[in-house]
Amino acid sequence: MTERAEIRVTPETLHRFAAAVLARTGMPEADADLVAEVLVDTDLRGVRTHGCMLLPNYVQRLECGVVNAKAQPRIVQDAPAAVLLDGDNGMGHLVGVRAIDIAIERARSQGVCLVGVRNSNHYGPAGHYAARAARAGMFGLSASIGSNNAMAPWGGRERLLGNNPVALAAPSGATPMPVLDFANSVVARARIIRAARQGEPIPLGWALDPEGQPTTDSQAGLAGTVVPMAGYKGAGLAYMLGLLAGVMTGAAFGRSVRDQFTDFANPQNIGHVMLAVDIAHFRPLAGFTAEVDQVSEEMRRSAPAPGSDRVGLPGDRSHRQAMDARSLGIEMDGALLEDLRGLADRLGVPRLTA
Amino acid sequence: MTERAEIRVTPETLHRFAAAVLARTGMPEADADLVAEVLVDTDLRGVRTHGCMLLPNYVQRLECGVVNAKAQPRIVQDAPAAVLLDGDNGMGHLVGVRAIDIAIERARSQGVCLVGVRNSNHYGPAGHYAARAARAGMFGLSASIGSNNAMAPWGGRERLLGNNPVALAAPSGATPMPVLDFANSVVARARIIRAARQGEPIPLGWALDPEGQPTTDSQAGLAGTVVPMAGYKGAGLAYMLGLLAGVMTGAAFGRSVRDQFTDFANPQNIGHVMLAVDIAHFRPLAGFTAEVDQVSEEMRRSAPAPGSDRVGLPGDRSHRQAMDARSLGIEMDGALLEDLRGLADRLGVPRLTA
Repeated sequence: MTERAEIRVTPETLHRFAAAVLARTGMPEADADLVAEVLVDTDLRGVRTHGCMLLPNYVQRLECGVVNAKAQPRIVQDAPAAVLLDGDNGMGHLVGVRAIDIAIERARSQGVCLVGVRNSNHYGPAGHYAARAARAGMFGLSASIGSNNAMAPWGGRERLLGNNPVALAAPSGATPMPVLDFANSVVARARIIRAARQGEPIPLGWALDPEGQPTTDSQAGLAGTVVPMAGYKGAGLAYMLGLLAGVMTGAAFGRSVRDQFTDFANPQNIGHVMLAVDIAHFRPLAGFTAEVDQVSEEMRRSAPAPGSDRVGLPGDRSHRQAMDARSLGIEMDGALLEDLRGLADRLGVPRLTA
Repeated sequence: MTERAEIRVTPETLHRFAAAVLARTGMPEADADLVAEVLVDTDLRGVRTHGCMLLPNYVQRLECGVVNAKAQPRIVQDAPAAVLLDGDNGMGHLVGVRAIDIAIERARSQGVCLVGVRNSNHYGPAGHYAARAARAGMFGLSASIGSNNAMAPWGGRERLLGNNPVALAAPSGATPMPVLDFANSVVARARIIRAARQGEPIPLGWALDPEGQPTTDSQAGLAGTVVPMAGYKGAGLAYMLGLLAGVMTGAAFGRSVRDQFTDFANPQNIGHVMLAVDIAHFRPLAGFTAEVDQVSEEMRRSAPAPGSDRVGLPGDRSHRQAMDARSLGIEMDGALLEDLRGLADRLGVPRLTA
């Protein structure tokens, strides 16, 4: 294996690369471009686990046809403020952007709109969609069925629940946009996978072994379940969001959820929900954003706890990371570059360079 | 102080008592009746901290006029699927039921409706309102500004955030209704108050002292802040829900929040949000409830973890508690009875008896 030094690339370079790779799988150029936009925004905001790192998996799924490269999402149920979108088994990012854009457009006239989605796939970070609504002057919420089951229901030890992420975002004025994006597990299962690969132990409290006992053995944790955040609350929230994003939409939930990383034969039928709430139907947007700025700055400027260098609000850190990445470039480490180089060479796309 | 043995009362007896007490403060009988219904349902479901235990505080607030006994909530902004309700500083339960009922009615035609509320007061358990939507065949969500500030923003040590509770509920068929109701703090501040009164320590992880250091001293914890659930996630969710239920509606949030238990001079201006999603606009309700039953039973019957006697889903425990309380009566302990006897005697209402 060749050692390759870390490089930094501009968002534009990374976008061109991702779009070119995706287009080679048969995706229409406009769709490849849109998915690339979501992936690069994700890397910019520092959510590296959901950015271009996933391109090899996405491409493999598109190439074998378990994800539809030529998907045409369509509305299948249509009430004034409630829409059901069938994703036609397309890339989740494409389907997700269509869905939140429908919610935003409807909310302008109805005040609020909820779009449910079925027959979709992994859509990356929930925060991207909530933030899209916030940039349109709306309170946004997005939740999704996770891309595999990782957790047990509370008191159990069988892997029946995804970490079912959820995000909320609101518009602000001059201060960073409030965006909260979290999964209902204590940690991402990816961190346990990484520890297992490197033969390292995991902290107590991250995982249960297959018998349901707390474990520090990363292999046992991987064979078992990830612990939900906040005990019964996290397991309960993952379940409730599953009923909404999965059962209500006609998507997978519980035993019917298939794993994005191990099952290349059966479509996932991932479900999402998108909610847009048009602030202007409650109060003038400028007054809202001014008050968000004011109350948020009061909190940011409040006394820090010992050992904390600042009081942080949701979205502050990813705002700083995006600012840095825009001026310095997006860091691409050696292992990731190696993966993407292999992909580029196989697909006949120019390699990613600084 | 007289020692009084615990008694059990029927829901009907407790309802009559609560309604009579509230009516003495000047509330119209129908309104007193509705608030009593919410309080008794809360006690039935085992959420004792939010049931009739709060009657003395509610009555004190109504008597001194800091809560309006003759409130007439009115719609002040009106879009097809988005409504802003001004609570006219009435009892939160009254305002809350009006709000979720508007959301349910609108969702029938629009598919979805979100009602924002300002100028309200403590509305008891968020789960009551979400469950009301679920009983109407809808997915329900309710969130509220907490009745005092208990937590610090993440990394801080100033009390600027309420525990801002949120609840979600969905209809089921033959199995218990899924209802999740939680606050964003690790524990209710009431438990720290109780420990402080009894001179007992609290477990590490519940509270920070005023300097922001973890403490086991209940007095120091009371002077400081309650720890958010799940670290930055709980603090972040309380903040985001505050922007929605507080800032968007024109209600209090941050430094403008006043304490229900210590401030009897200034109205609280509590805000809530209610969301109703009519399942039937996505898929036939009978198919949804059948699938909720099936997937929930799969989870309930899955293998339990060691030391756990059952796999529990949100709402299961309060369902069992309500069944028990309906057949055996609602347990009223000596201290609570003593409080309610004082209230009854002062207001000239017959005492509560078994």
